[in-house]
Amino acid sequence: MNFEEKQIESKTVYAGKIIDVEVMKVELPNGKMATRDIVRHMPAVAVLAINNENKMILMKQWRAPIDALTLEIPAGKLDDRDQGDMLGAINRELNEETRYRSGKISEISSFYTAIGFSDEYMTLYLATELEPVQNELPQDDDENLEMITVTLDQALMMVNSKEIVDQKTIMAIYYWATMK
Amino acid sequence: MNFEEKQIESKTVYAGKIIDVEVMKVELPNGKMATRDIVRHMPAVAVLAINNENKMILMKQWRAPIDALTLEIPAGKLDDRDQGDMLGAINRELNEETRYRSGKISEISSFYTAIGFSDEYMTLYLATELEPVQNELPQDDDENLEMITVTLDQALMMVNSKEIVDQKTIMAIYYWATMK
Repeated sequence: MNFEEKQIESKTVYAGKIIDVEVMKVELPNGKMATRDIVRHMPAVAVLAINNENKMILMKQWRAPIDALTLEIPAGKLDDRDQGDMLGAINRELNEETRYRSGKISEISSFYTAIGFSDEYMTLYLATELEPVQNELPQDDDENLEMITVTLDQALMMVNSKEIVDQKTIMAIYYWATMK
Repeated sequence: MNFEEKQIESKTVYAGKIIDVEVMKVELPNGKMATRDIVRHMPAVAVLAINNENKMILMKQWRAPIDALTLEIPAGKLDDRDQGDMLGAINRELNEETRYRSGKISEISSFYTAIGFSDEYMTLYLATELEPVQNELPQDDDENLEMITVTLDQALMMVNSKEIVDQKTIMAIYYWATMK
């Protein structure tokens, strides 16, 4: 079967601070035309950070899209500094959000977060051997964060009770559960 | 700590077929103003469907946002028909995409897929006791799909090799791995 949708033309209908929105005209395999809404977003990293007490780090933060406080694993967009230095990017995010640095970082998996309408590509890492940082990096001045730590059992209960409602965080918790 | 970002005003800058884009002006806890880009999207369901041979169902499909073919668990947007009838919605999605119906459906978890910029809310279900449907529902005429089935070990290898790059699908695979 031929699946390809040929991209015929594209128009940027919104250029924002963290996203651009494109309307793409595509030709379907059957020759018909269709339009696709596409949200362009920078790649991002997220970190399952497990401390020396075998607890994971969660950050409390406000999320405007759902007008609510959430609990999420540390995460952030990549920027130009991060070309070829993923470990640096992850330790920067950890430093900014948690004030820890990790002595041992490995990739868990990479994925598109909302593939139906966006190209945001995220890589999830496992970070262990955490130690307090010597030099604290400045935090984004429009971001308020507070850290908590939870065990695997607590985390799984917080998924069931919908205290945790963020996909990357729940994914990281399931992955952690497979590590036992 | 006070986290709340008060919503001051909001403007819809794009109204599309599957998304609307809003620019929200918010007041931060420190009194400063900031803007937030927000992509509004319908809620959705996704299904970890495991057949009688203990294989999961994956759908091959084209995804315009990444201009590539993907492998994903069955999923779809909810619509007005689905108020209060989630099982009906899931069996409709399964019917349209896989031509199976499930005799046993349970909720795994619910989450925001891309909480940094979107309100898309998805619920992941586990569907077992699959049987071929009697009456095939019509498929969306701009959607081409092909079904494959894989074991858990195959699925985990396909995550590592980046043949599977869809977050909800990888999350479902990790969840499946915890069920062993």
